[in-house]
Amino acid sequence: MSDVDDLRPRVAAAVGALRERAPLVHGATGSVTRALVADGLLAAGARPMLTESAAEAPTLVTVADALLVNLGSLSTDGMVGFLPTARTAAERGVPWVLDPTAIGVAPVRTPLARELLALRPSVVRGNASEVLVLAGGTTGGRGADSTACPEAAARAARALALDHACVVAVSGEVDLVTDGRRSARISSGTPLLTRVTGTGCLLGALTAAHLAVATPFVAAVAATALLTVASERVAHLRPGSFRVGLLDALDEVGADEVAGEVRLAWG
Amino acid sequence: MSDVDDLRPRVAAAVGALRERAPLVHGATGSVTRALVADGLLAAGARPMLTESAAEAPTLVTVADALLVNLGSLSTDGMVGFLPTARTAAERGVPWVLDPTAIGVAPVRTPLARELLALRPSVVRGNASEVLVLAGGTTGGRGADSTACPEAAARAARALALDHACVVAVSGEVDLVTDGRRSARISSGTPLLTRVTGTGCLLGALTAAHLAVATPFVAAVAATALLTVASERVAHLRPGSFRVGLLDALDEVGADEVAGEVRLAWG
Amino acid sequence: MSDVDDLRPRVAAAVGALRERAPLVHGATGSVTRALVADGLLAAGARPMLTESAAEAPTLVTVADALLVNLGSLSTDGMVGFLPTARTAAERGVPWVLDPTAIGVAPVRTPLARELLALRPSVVRGNASEVLVLAGGTTGGRGADSTACPEAAARAARALALDHACVVAVSGEVDLVTDGRRSARISSGTPLLTRVTGTGCLLGALTAAHLAVATPFVAAVAATALLTVASERVAHLRPGSFRVGLLDALDEVGADEVAGEVRLAWG
Repeated sequence: MSDVDDLRPRVAAAVGALRERAPLVHGATGSVTRALVADGLLAAGARPMLTESAAEAPTLVTVADALLVNLGSLSTDGMVGFLPTARTAAERGVPWVLDPTAIGVAPVRTPLARELLALRPSVVRGNASEVLVLAGGTTGGRGADSTACPEAAARAARALALDHACVVAVSGEVDLVTDGRRSARISSGTPLLTRVTGTGCLLGALTAAHLAVATPFVAAVAATALLTVASERVAHLRPGSFRVGLLDALDEVGADEVAGEVRLAWG
Repeated sequence: MSDVDDLRPRVAAAVGALRERAPLVHGATGSVTRALVADGLLAAGARPMLTESAAEAPTLVTVADALLVNLGSLSTDGMVGFLPTARTAAERGVPWVLDPTAIGVAPVRTPLARELLALRPSVVRGNASEVLVLAGGTTGGRGADSTACPEAAARAARALALDHACVVAVSGEVDLVTDGRRSARISSGTPLLTRVTGTGCLLGALTAAHLAVATPFVAAVAATALLTVASERVAHLRPGSFRVGLLDALDEVGADEVAGEVRLAWG
Repeated sequence: MSDVDDLRPRVAAAVGALRERAPLVHGATGSVTRALVADGLLAAGARPMLTESAAEAPTLVTVADALLVNLGSLSTDGMVGFLPTARTAAERGVPWVLDPTAIGVAPVRTPLARELLALRPSVVRGNASEVLVLAGGTTGGRGADSTACPEAAARAARALALDHACVVAVSGEVDLVTDGRRSARISSGTPLLTRVTGTGCLLGALTAAHLAVATPFVAAVAATALLTVASERVAHLRPGSFRVGLLDALDEVGADEVAGEVRLAWG
């Protein structure tokens, strides 16, 4: 894949395969965004299963096709349940995404993210601040926002990917997906994605869903392409209507359109 | 009630009485679907009260007109709180619905569902897989999906209803409501109901709401009729808009229309 | 501020400053309404951060510009986390709002609300029943509804405000904001606000957001003005569409329009 033209058909194939196979995606994710994550997975063609308690999540992940672990609004159930759930996924070969939401100031989730990172996620997905903190560079932003420099984050992402043999996806005005050697940049999307709670979590969930049907690199690019191309269809709306329209667009947009319309570049 | 024409006026009366009396419905239900459950109850004319912790839920249920216990995305609070809450409801004569979401593989909720079943729910509501597991027949589907044969589920539902002196409602392409001796089938609805998270939970909550104003059998039929007739009004929409339109339709549809338009049969 | 005309420009300035400064609002609030609270804060121009566990919330509040503590659908995490979080806010000078949702019958949240009240909230926000219970007058309504007399609640609110040196906001058909000496009444709004779950929680969150840019009295008036004026724009819709349209309107309505259109009086 030295050419973007090689990547586009893989994106189309992944988005199409998701709809055809309807993978079961286990989402261990914060309570604020669960409904959007579940509805977004359904709209894209996947099937959601969301539970986080240590008593059930490690067992339930064994029947899933992929897992998302997202640290947003971390509960006690999540603090106790995330590690055994991710460990089971790693042992059973269930591909999984780590989304280290708002690490930095938060005292529990920052070391927890590092422990999770040792359990071989296929993809790490975060904003620039979160990726920099995970890579050891800074102490992070405030809340779920990112205040970091994109280029510093790109260097951190490449290092993180090489160190942990995973794909790292950094969301921002331009999204970056890297395995440490090659990097794709996706510049589709709309600032409205930051005006609705949970679109970052949904991107993590869609990445997990695509892991069931594609390689980690293609899965991360395809999920970003799907969400951002869908978002552009409803970029003229205000935030309440945008959230609704985004779900409609995830259902409506064709796999070939996603691959054809995404603004994609290497580098 | 040997004739469907005898059932229709009871459905109309129940849907109308719900709006008139605005019963307070205690929902002990998973975090993913709570907002849809609460908004759906409000749209239908009931008043929601959602809490699940053992420290508060057993006390709060004493002021409620009906209770829903739903095992979806079971939290530690729910594991500890559901049994004392249902026990209090049973002792105080508060009618209640058991929705054993995703039992089967899940290690805690499967035995918990059996313990709850011993506390005399008025209605058990689930999909075919869940009803088969609860009746002891199989080990269940994956997640909240159903993979079971409808006729096997109908037999299991009738046996479950007779064994536990309750009404059993099985959702699917055709919904079944049975008390073990007689059974109603409702074939209204749209596949879009499976493309939005929480419509099954909402059906359980609407069933609980109708328990405050009707017998268990009529309550289960009326709730199914209300939700499926409302869903047909917005069946042309994509999933994001469908979720919004479903709430609008629950508010808008008339009680007589629900009773008149529902596709209902005995058997 | 002896004249309503003195209050209007302060309301306009507060609503405008919120959008300009985008304060980070920490919401410790129930799981049912978190998505609406977060999306409503974003639509109004603030940035939400929602977490409630004792392990993280007291640390995270130190980077916030304001805090909301809402007792709705109280979880075990909230029971344990709310007091240390509010204590940290009080110690660090982070202004905060106490929303004692559904106190009265609920056995844990009623004494918890009193302990929280001792930690110097800038604003206490509730319906008439909740304010009467907190002031010691009654044992409260059922669930999150209010059954109390507005005038009795107004007296209780003034007493509560004087006793605790805070502003008390009582929502109802006419909203009241008082510091014990002077009181503003806002009669804008629509009954649809009671047909959607979480609009009371959202009002508490918007009040917290305005605390970052205005005095407690002006913050409570401005938040009520913003929400009720926005609600009137979409008062012709049914509840599902109303929830969506309300978020759009929070984004769209101008600060001067809010101040100009709000039905505001002293007394």
